[in-house]
Amino acid sequence: MEFNPSEINERLPYLLKRENIARYEDGVVLVGDRRQFPFQREFVVCRSVEEAAAAIREMVTQGGGPWVVAAYALALRARQMADKPKDDQRAALQLATAQLKATRPTSIHLHRLVERALAAGETALDLGQDAEGAILTWTEAKRDDIHVRSAQMGWYGAEMIRDGAGILTMCFAETAFLLGLAYARAAGRQFRVFVPETRPYLQGARLTAPSIDEMGIEAILITDNMPGHIISQGKVDVFFTGADLVTLDGHVVNKIGTFQNALACDYYRVPFFPYSWEPDYLHPDRASIKVEERDPAEILQARGTATTLDSLKSYYPAFDITPPHLVAGVITKFGILSPYALHRYFGEKELADG
Amino acid sequence: MEFNPSEINERLPYLLKRENIARYEDGVVLVGDRRQFPFQREFVVCRSVEEAAAAIREMVTQGGGPWVVAAYALALRARQMADKPKDDQRAALQLATAQLKATRPTSIHLHRLVERALAAGETALDLGQDAEGAILTWTEAKRDDIHVRSAQMGWYGAEMIRDGAGILTMCFAETAFLLGLAYARAAGRQFRVFVPETRPYLQGARLTAPSIDEMGIEAILITDNMPGHIISQGKVDVFFTGADLVTLDGHVVNKIGTFQNALACDYYRVPFFPYSWEPDYLHPDRASIKVEERDPAEILQARGTATTLDSLKSYYPAFDITPPHLVAGVITKFGILSPYALHRYFGEKELADG
Repeated sequence: MEFNPSEINERLPYLLKRENIARYEDGVVLVGDRRQFPFQREFVVCRSVEEAAAAIREMVTQGGGPWVVAAYALALRARQMADKPKDDQRAALQLATAQLKATRPTSIHLHRLVERALAAGETALDLGQDAEGAILTWTEAKRDDIHVRSAQMGWYGAEMIRDGAGILTMCFAETAFLLGLAYARAAGRQFRVFVPETRPYLQGARLTAPSIDEMGIEAILITDNMPGHIISQGKVDVFFTGADLVTLDGHVVNKIGTFQNALACDYYRVPFFPYSWEPDYLHPDRASIKVEERDPAEILQARGTATTLDSLKSYYPAFDITPPHLVAGVITKFGILSPYALHRYFGEKELADG
Repeated sequence: MEFNPSEINERLPYLLKRENIARYEDGVVLVGDRRQFPFQREFVVCRSVEEAAAAIREMVTQGGGPWVVAAYALALRARQMADKPKDDQRAALQLATAQLKATRPTSIHLHRLVERALAAGETALDLGQDAEGAILTWTEAKRDDIHVRSAQMGWYGAEMIRDGAGILTMCFAETAFLLGLAYARAAGRQFRVFVPETRPYLQGARLTAPSIDEMGIEAILITDNMPGHIISQGKVDVFFTGADLVTLDGHVVNKIGTFQNALACDYYRVPFFPYSWEPDYLHPDRASIKVEERDPAEILQARGTATTLDSLKSYYPAFDITPPHLVAGVITKFGILSPYALHRYFGEKELADG
């Protein structure tokens, strides 16, 4: 199957179209603001590396957005410094890279890609070429390459959707998952997707359900206490989710709630498929994972409205871990792999190539 | 163990104290308003059967509240009619009983108790006595009797709480559960309770967590997607819940989310104990249950704040069903019974005695 970046972009809903994630316009980075979606469709305007770094830190964008914003911010910096001596340009780009990496201290993905953008700029300077243009060219080629890889993964996932299927998901599984739905629909199959709202940030309610609905596919919003019951009713045939991280030994780290959905799927023999951009050789096993805990005060509100007394104690583990024996297959660029076989496909060399 | 109604009332948090559920003051029924709790502690004032019926319909009170409000409303009606001919008094009480039963067409519990209150009034009329006083006397004796039975059940439940325990609950399990916590604490045992917020009405966040906290017991509010993860961390030793209904063959019908929590408990061998006022011979098995579906629009908001676009499709099954093989024991007035043995203890005679 050959995939064309423009054709892929056409299939995506508003939130994931490349022009809505981030745009670069003559030294200005426009960042699609996910925080107020779907209520507003606005862009945060960044005219400096500092403003772009703040936008990343403040979660204006998430998922596949931060690295694009960071790379565009590097192009912006190259433009600002274009008249300066080459050594000053190089130093400014290196400083900006460090600032942008610091926005997400644990995101290897962001760090690697912004370093590649820097390398593109430095190579241009070495060759006496335009660093801004070189960074932009590299960034947009990489962005399209990622879309093509997501489309390949979605194509694999689409084969798991039979006509008449009920699908369950969690949080916002992003481009590969939504392209999987698009390809299954393009093949003429009818199906519907149950979308848990995903408290406390409501990514399911705010991002996933409106995006699926916009694609002309039936999306049914539920609360996070309902998946077990809905599976018990026989309404779910397959579970797809994204994954923040998959360890080399097949543990799936994803938004809190994924694990208890996996337990309910296991009980009713519903296959559980995580989309994984790249199982991570830096995390060989469960022991290498530290589950992030976030501000407990977030649990006491919903979109800024208090849900109870603010004096109460609460707890906010942001992710959970699903073990490989609950995973039917990991959807990767190499196909749908057994969770026990990932180490044969993903290792240090693969990561360096990423 | 002997239980004293006043001593029981002392142990209860604000929301469940008898004077805060409903009061009767010289022909006026004051109904504690749970809808705005814990943000406001207010009473809805009812001066007629119609106003009391509206308060019940509009969910001003829930759980053990509606039957008390209905019985007080009957006393109120008796007072309004006290100067009228006896036949008119009797007819007015019978009409009021029908109006009050209609507020909750499927609540056998409410129907039975309001009929008993009517019988107390009619007996008084037969004997030429004060119907209002007779209804009040019967109501308050019944209310105290229910508290004593709840205390007995709580006493059984308390024995399942070891020192240092982690407890999980769901929704608002009411008096017996909270008395169980109180007795375990009075016995010197320390423990903490994880409370899922229970979307969409947030009974866990609004009612359960503040009530447990008020009792001086550690309550930790979580969202409904977290119990599986928290159980996997080894933080939960026992699960207690209320039950809207337990069938005679041991199926537990309770607030949506209970079932998937039971699945996670089963996976980690955490015992699951529902408190059941009375397994119901009118519901012999799972096939006899119809799960109520409520207005899907409720899923699109949290305390009145939109969580997504109001044009989206959603689904709101209000309850789920946990099968007996996931139930460690049903806490009843007879002790903690096997879910498979309920028919030996609860039958038609028992219900008539309720």
